Amino acid sequence: MSNLLLAVDVGGTNTEVAVTDLQGRVKEQALAGTDASGPEGLLDSVENAVHHVLRQLNATTADLAGVGLGVPGQVHPESGVVRLAVNLNLTSFPLAMALGGRLRAPVAVENDVRLAALGLYHRLQQERVGQSLAYVSVGTGIAAGIVNDGKLLRGANGMAGEIGHVVFDPQGERCLCGLRGCLETIVSGPAIARQATSWAGPTVTARDVYDAAADGNEKAQKLVQRISSHLARALHWLIMSYDVEQLIVGGGVTTAGPLFWEPVTAELSKIRQHSSLAQSMLPTGRIKPLEGDENPGIWGATILAQQVAGHVRPII
Amino acid sequence: MSNLLLAVDVGGTNTEVAVTDLQGRVKEQALAGTDASGPEGLLDSVENAVHHVLRQLNATTADLAGVGLGVPGQVHPESGVVRLAVNLNLTSFPLAMALGGRLRAPVAVENDVRLAALGLYHRLQQERVGQSLAYVSVGTGIAAGIVNDGKLLRGANGMAGEIGHVVFDPQGERCLCGLRGCLETIVSGPAIARQATSWAGPTVTARDVYDAAADGNEKAQKLVQRISSHLARALHWLIMSYDVEQLIVGGGVTTAGPLFWEPVTAELSKIRQHSSLAQSMLPTGRIKPLEGDENPGIWGATILAQQVAGHVRPII
Repeated sequence: MSNLLLAVDVGGTNTEVAVTDLQGRVKEQALAGTDASGPEGLLDSVENAVHHVLRQLNATTADLAGVGLGVPGQVHPESGVVRLAVNLNLTSFPLAMALGGRLRAPVAVENDVRLAALGLYHRLQQERVGQSLAYVSVGTGIAAGIVNDGKLLRGANGMAGEIGHVVFDPQGERCLCGLRGCLETIVSGPAIARQATSWAGPTVTARDVYDAAADGNEKAQKLVQRISSHLARALHWLIMSYDVEQLIVGGGVTTAGPLFWEPVTAELSKIRQHSSLAQSMLPTGRIKPLEGDENPGIWGATILAQQVAGHVRPII
Repeated sequence: MSNLLLAVDVGGTNTEVAVTDLQGRVKEQALAGTDASGPEGLLDSVENAVHHVLRQLNATTADLAGVGLGVPGQVHPESGVVRLAVNLNLTSFPLAMALGGRLRAPVAVENDVRLAALGLYHRLQQERVGQSLAYVSVGTGIAAGIVNDGKLLRGANGMAGEIGHVVFDPQGERCLCGLRGCLETIVSGPAIARQATSWAGPTVTARDVYDAAADGNEKAQKLVQRISSHLARALHWLIMSYDVEQLIVGGGVTTAGPLFWEPVTAELSKIRQHSSLAQSMLPTGRIKPLEGDENPGIWGATILAQQVAGHVRPII
């Protein structure tokens, strides 16, 4: 009798794995490094992490009724084929099928940020926040997931919300995608660090920049202001595009906490300052940082696992 | 027996009225000036135009089974209250109820650009273009209407797609909304004219600018390039935000035809040039100008009239 679900959130650096009961209550979880060398390495690292967690529960893959997995890339939801997952060195790989073969369980795959939005939406539904939500993840990249009328907005190619690759500064830095001045070249962990290397050395991190700004370093403060004003513009733009009830900002960079969020709040106030339209569209509390240290990607992957488990017919 | 529908598209300058049969086939239509002095003037001008068209058909308002009306402003779809219709001098007015009282027929009201997107979607559905579409109107303002999974994306406040008031140039001109450098201060009929007054005089129109550019005027050509590059960036944004199958660009400014569209195409090519992601997201034919000289706002208003007529119960 398969009575466990598996939720996996694959990041460019780490992979989080949770095993839950059929109601989605976490029984055991683990964090492992992601092998981003290519398809086989990725499958090995995910499989090892899964077996590790299952062993803690004295369970096996035979106990898995369904697997939901989030991955940073373009995903075809029906086929589970992952395309353009640059950070994982996957160009076109049938991840759902390959992992399903290894785990002998039904696997569904979705883009990680889209999945986090779905997870967050279901979690916040318990507080009755309404029918729409956007989740913006600021980490290795920047992207948004949108839930409208309770449903994930995917778009024709699963790319709805890929705001990291829109041009904010046509004269700006060349992005990995080939364009100049993409939002991701300004607001993302690696971009924040890169903009600080000239004065802070090659090993500086985004977190170091926020810490230096808090310590009164003027160059760091100027950079934080630049990042925050661009992010505030992007958040305003998302509100005008989707008119969602709530916009939640999370992701690796936001773990700097108030050091990250307070300058963004200040820039949002500047936008509100001269415009009654902006005031009505950006009321306090509509845009908020993600609270707590739980990973909404795992919540979304759990929902996906529940969905795929629902499609399983008893073999007997 | 009420067997006619009324479709009305109220613009800042003109109001278009069409009377159709219950299947939406146009029987008679007319264009009249919009009285934008306030609620009473607007109601008078719409009512006069309606009676004019009905008279051509030897019909009266008793023949109207339903009325659909598009208006440039924020609309609450259930109550039919119009808010923030700056170009019509309406701040908060129960337009559906007031017009329904005058015409003694059920009236539904929706934002004009959202309604045009809905109309266009249904018209193109006959050519099986897929489940999603965005319509961008470049006229007195600039805004988008989005249809996803066959349904209008309205947002929590009916403001989804109000991209005219997102900041493209933080150091730019002050917008009527109070912000600086909104897209509408660069790409809209009045903004195009305003940017040309210093060298073309105070009575210049957007169309004059396009004509002057075609005649080789370098200042006009430079301005057209500025407008086109900003619009191309906005269209790219919209594709990355919604990932719709088709994006159609219409509105008053686009009546300049190839003079308007060719520079936009050239700017979209520049975006594609260095990025395989942009190439895959902006294939030729995905973004197109509106064809023909029919008004998709009227198509959408007709659908709305059909919907509201369907809700009417026979009185007997």
